[in-house]
Amino acid sequence: MNERLRQQIDFLTILDREKQIERKTRLTDGNRYENDAEHAWHLAVSALILAEYANNDIDVFKTVKMLLFHDVVEIEAGDTYAYDTEGQKTQAERERKAADHLYSMLPDDQAQHFRELWDEFDHGNTPEARFARALDRFQPTMQNAAQDGNDWKARGVRLCPMLARNKETGKGSQILWDLSLNEWILPNVQAGNIIDDRVSNDDSFDCSSTHDKK
Amino acid sequence: MNERLRQQIDFLTILDREKQIERKTRLTDGNRYENDAEHAWHLAVSALILAEYANNDIDVFKTVKMLLFHDVVEIEAGDTYAYDTEGQKTQAERERKAADHLYSMLPDDQAQHFRELWDEFDHGNTPEARFARALDRFQPTMQNAAQDGNDWKARGVRLCPMLARNKETGKGSQILWDLSLNEWILPNVQAGNIIDDRVSNDDSFDCSSTHDKK
Repeated sequence: MNERLRQQIDFLTILDREKQIERKTRLTDGNRYENDAEHAWHLAVSALILAEYANNDIDVFKTVKMLLFHDVVEIEAGDTYAYDTEGQKTQAERERKAADHLYSMLPDDQAQHFRELWDEFDHGNTPEARFARALDRFQPTMQNAAQDGNDWKARGVRLCPMLARNKETGKGSQILWDLSLNEWILPNVQAGNIIDDRVSNDDSFDCSSTHDKK
Repeated sequence: MNERLRQQIDFLTILDREKQIERKTRLTDGNRYENDAEHAWHLAVSALILAEYANNDIDVFKTVKMLLFHDVVEIEAGDTYAYDTEGQKTQAERERKAADHLYSMLPDDQAQHFRELWDEFDHGNTPEARFARALDRFQPTMQNAAQDGNDWKARGVRLCPMLARNKETGKGSQILWDLSLNEWILPNVQAGNIIDDRVSNDDSFDCSSTHDKK
């Protein structure tokens, strides 16, 4: 086996470990948590089915590539739960180091290509990155709603941090954000599965004052 | 939510079930079997990394789409183990029925597009389908070899059926087949992890006579 092929096979063998990184979202039947590999697959197929709802024209293939690789860093950096404020303090540094190491396993041309794609996703400044990040919020919400919000309730999830996190969805797709908010999030607030921690209940979704309270 | 979007969300919600379809290949650490969603993800990233080894020029995006969806039918048809000759008698019919039902959940244009892609994969007559099918054989072999062939040994896997099944790899990529045969399969025959059931041990890989014996 030549050196190039050896590097590629070693990289693909390491990627198998992504199947062991547990997330904090359950499968729709509620029985177990999904892992990063399953999540990346679900996002990639979602991009293929929902691309028409991106706020801007996107290169769908580029978006799919981004999504397939977006969590590879977690093989070494671990998953950081959306509402783990302690873990989030070190997340960027842990993930950057993991990206430096993992992508450098590939031949130089591929290392550069896939590292650039991950940086683009991470920065979230292009139409593809914004749509990819939108789906990264949208899919767990869809999956939690499909379990009747049971896991949100069990975790004591609060509305204001959820809105802060999920506003990314609207940056990539206003249509998917409207759906997510009106069909999944608000009905689960109403049902008591998501704690309404807004100061005033005026339907403004303004969480600015509660947000600092934690 | 309009009808089109509702159909797409219903389809994507059903796809979550692919994470529960267990395959007969273990993760590289040997601890559990992988599932169809993880497998599809691993094949899609493998296509992105290994496309240069396809026997013919391929449309990589089309190949990735094919791989992401190639096992969706198993949500309703179940996984059929590579060496389950009984299950294979009904596999084509079960999978066709599942495809009829599952893809028809999508809006017509998408139903047609993704059904055609699955049919193309299933028939295996285009360069993209041949490469996708090559990876579908290559990845489990890579993963079994990474566990030092322990699972092959535990299952009593024999060389001739394995060669019959894995010859698909060479149709899509001679380079990946040479690697698979010489670096993974033959060393595991030598180590006694794969049973050598050829009549004559003449290195011809001609299994024609043993093949009928089962």
